[in-house]
Amino acid sequence: MPTKIVLNDDQIPQKWYNIQADMPTPLQPPLGRDGNPIGPDDLAPIFPMNLIEQEMSTERWIDIPEPILDAYSLWRPSPLYRAKEFEKALDCPVKIYYKNEGVSPAGSHKPNTAIAQAYYNKVFGIKRLTTETGAGQWGSALAMSCARFGLECKVFMVRISFEQKPFRKLMMAVWGANCVPSPSEETQAGRNVLARDPNTPGALGIAISEAIEQAVDDPDTRYSLGSVLNHVMLHQTVIGLEAKKQMELAGDYPDVIIGCAGGGSNFAGLAFPYVADKINGKEIDIIPVEPKACPTMTRAPFSYDHGDEAEMTPLMPMHSLGHKFIPAPIHAGGLRYHGMAPLVSQLAVDGLLAPQSYHQKDCYESAILWARTEGFISAPETSHAIAAVVAEAKKAKEEGKEKTILFNWSGHGLLDLIGYDKFIKGELTDVEMSQEELDEWTKCMEGHPQPMTAGG
Amino acid sequence: MPTKIVLNDDQIPQKWYNIQADMPTPLQPPLGRDGNPIGPDDLAPIFPMNLIEQEMSTERWIDIPEPILDAYSLWRPSPLYRAKEFEKALDCPVKIYYKNEGVSPAGSHKPNTAIAQAYYNKVFGIKRLTTETGAGQWGSALAMSCARFGLECKVFMVRISFEQKPFRKLMMAVWGANCVPSPSEETQAGRNVLARDPNTPGALGIAISEAIEQAVDDPDTRYSLGSVLNHVMLHQTVIGLEAKKQMELAGDYPDVIIGCAGGGSNFAGLAFPYVADKINGKEIDIIPVEPKACPTMTRAPFSYDHGDEAEMTPLMPMHSLGHKFIPAPIHAGGLRYHGMAPLVSQLAVDGLLAPQSYHQKDCYESAILWARTEGFISAPETSHAIAAVVAEAKKAKEEGKEKTILFNWSGHGLLDLIGYDKFIKGELTDVEMSQEELDEWTKCMEGHPQPMTAGG
Repeated sequence: MPTKIVLNDDQIPQKWYNIQADMPTPLQPPLGRDGNPIGPDDLAPIFPMNLIEQEMSTERWIDIPEPILDAYSLWRPSPLYRAKEFEKALDCPVKIYYKNEGVSPAGSHKPNTAIAQAYYNKVFGIKRLTTETGAGQWGSALAMSCARFGLECKVFMVRISFEQKPFRKLMMAVWGANCVPSPSEETQAGRNVLARDPNTPGALGIAISEAIEQAVDDPDTRYSLGSVLNHVMLHQTVIGLEAKKQMELAGDYPDVIIGCAGGGSNFAGLAFPYVADKINGKEIDIIPVEPKACPTMTRAPFSYDHGDEAEMTPLMPMHSLGHKFIPAPIHAGGLRYHGMAPLVSQLAVDGLLAPQSYHQKDCYESAILWARTEGFISAPETSHAIAAVVAEAKKAKEEGKEKTILFNWSGHGLLDLIGYDKFIKGELTDVEMSQEELDEWTKCMEGHPQPMTAGG
Repeated sequence: MPTKIVLNDDQIPQKWYNIQADMPTPLQPPLGRDGNPIGPDDLAPIFPMNLIEQEMSTERWIDIPEPILDAYSLWRPSPLYRAKEFEKALDCPVKIYYKNEGVSPAGSHKPNTAIAQAYYNKVFGIKRLTTETGAGQWGSALAMSCARFGLECKVFMVRISFEQKPFRKLMMAVWGANCVPSPSEETQAGRNVLARDPNTPGALGIAISEAIEQAVDDPDTRYSLGSVLNHVMLHQTVIGLEAKKQMELAGDYPDVIIGCAGGGSNFAGLAFPYVADKINGKEIDIIPVEPKACPTMTRAPFSYDHGDEAEMTPLMPMHSLGHKFIPAPIHAGGLRYHGMAPLVSQLAVDGLLAPQSYHQKDCYESAILWARTEGFISAPETSHAIAAVVAEAKKAKEEGKEKTILFNWSGHGLLDLIGYDKFIKGELTDVEMSQEELDEWTKCMEGHPQPMTAGG
């Protein structure tokens, strides 16, 4: 067995896989303020119609346009690795495979959808995209993609991250994007917040409001979101589709699939093509991994909720800690979202997924072992997947079973080294939400419509 | 033509190519303080004997041991890219290919030799390696490699970089290395400097002295150098050997080879297998690229000189600005060395290479165009190669000739974004050495033995 299995450019998948075609419980629709399902026209000021059609499509396979395949070929197909040295260090009866999504120019899986969204906006005649970003992974992926297709890019970056994490905003500048701290003076939403609290550190919910406001106010501008939505999950399925080909070349099939989950997109990208197999009868454990500090799937209810703090988005059926949730300052910024993609949430509700949660110190410990064996330094989000790999390997040893694990190494941590430093110096703390806190956060969803659950 | 050509793990070259077997003028030996050639025993306190043998070997092909091939397979073979979007932007009659060495865990070509050096020290029974590092590229590559082979790693990092560039030292910590600012209190060399000037910013020459002192003082410790030496050039030839296979698969052969050159190793790695072709009659322009602020090959004499400021190393025959040279603070830290690898220097003297030099602002301008077309953000060193690619493309257009250019994209710049920021803000200045300055710096070599030059 080689260390990695690479594919040629002409083996990039030609179609995305749409899990909506195969779900045992069909996805329940987003609802408007009046409690009625919203339609394409309601979304038209925010997204271009070609992406709205993808958002609502139930076609199983959707063609990937040639210019997107061309752009994907800058880093795709991503290599599938066998983690030989990590296996040796764990000394458990497991084979561990991983997809390396860190090879993209932005260093994570995010460009899989950023490239697609930039392309579809471009062909729809849009000139400019707005978005929000926390730590900056998504903002930099969209900046790179807009440069590729000649779109302007405006990024509202949560102010405290803008100040504390200067490097991702510099990446965005290299790619020609305009990144400003949020709240800003450029939007009514921003000015309102600044009037109330000039020293606010900002929040993702506020940044979303600013980005949507600028999109809605200008016919040449649309808004772009890096996770949660159906079309984002769709674009990410190239990961799992490639992995299937590569696992076949390795002569293996996974017993366990693992991916970290914030909004759900990198997990979905790897997992959905395998969820299809599970629906068709394959025995396979499919594990989305989240922080104990933000336990969306493991502890929060499945409910209709808003995607943002300011309640500008429709109500979506999802596991949610409540749209007013303010996460503890764990280093995995990409895993601090209050909700979970409706597609991932529905599959979890239907028992097809087995979510787990971990403390960040365990995640850093696993990621350090990873770096010292496999070489690559993992993003703090990715370290959650590695912690679950370690746990599953130990479980296999206890049970005396041989297992094949496949996980998504969603990105490198070269711009997130501060968290490692704090871990090594013993300065990190673990945060677990109490039941009282959980009850308090989820209160804001009282009175929201309830989605149907299995058998309900 | 695909965007990139990938090879499988089993296509990693099984042997390194040693240019010493084919040079028209044999390499002239290093000299000791007495002016006589030094032998293997003189180097034994500093390097393990297996590497000293490689340093002095004239065998054309040297087998790569299996454990090194295994470690290489974490990122090798590196992909060969066709820079299609950059070509379109330049609109010149050129095809541009590049090797992407940024895919290694440390983000540059440096691990090609770091892995090899860690392995050879390990099998020689060494427990600990010391080295120096400026900006940290080399220190982090050696840290990663020592983790792989279970060696302790001690890195003396130039103090001003240690303070101004915290991220590469954090990478080293993740890999378990001990990185300290130099000068330190741990060595006599460091204490001497600190006694004279407690606030010194440090210098590479001082850090080398500290690293060598600790190696010489402990029989379980050896010293490791990331460029300049023959065995380092040797290890890097995997780049060019892979490129030849990939160019053949692309159905193409380069008219022009380009690589940036500080100590010379990434340039040599790509170029030497093609220099062999040129020696055998192929028409090909082979261009090492350096900063105008550190014009080693383009303006400095070919002379015997020391590798370090403190004159601890033997005298080596090389292009040198003088071992007392203090470079201007350009951002390409890896291109600020006063000397050039003896192998590269001799080939330049023999007319096989055609060195060029560029100002850093032109390099950043080229690198920004690169990022906005090809996606990847280049290291400041690598940007010098890109500037030469642009110049060669424009030359081809002026001459009305079609050309195929191959260059070494030696590393990414994700940990070097400050330079881009300053360029975008218009805060960078260009530095060109006057003839008076050049005369002043090279004075320290007066009285050194003179190597023979072609026909001399």
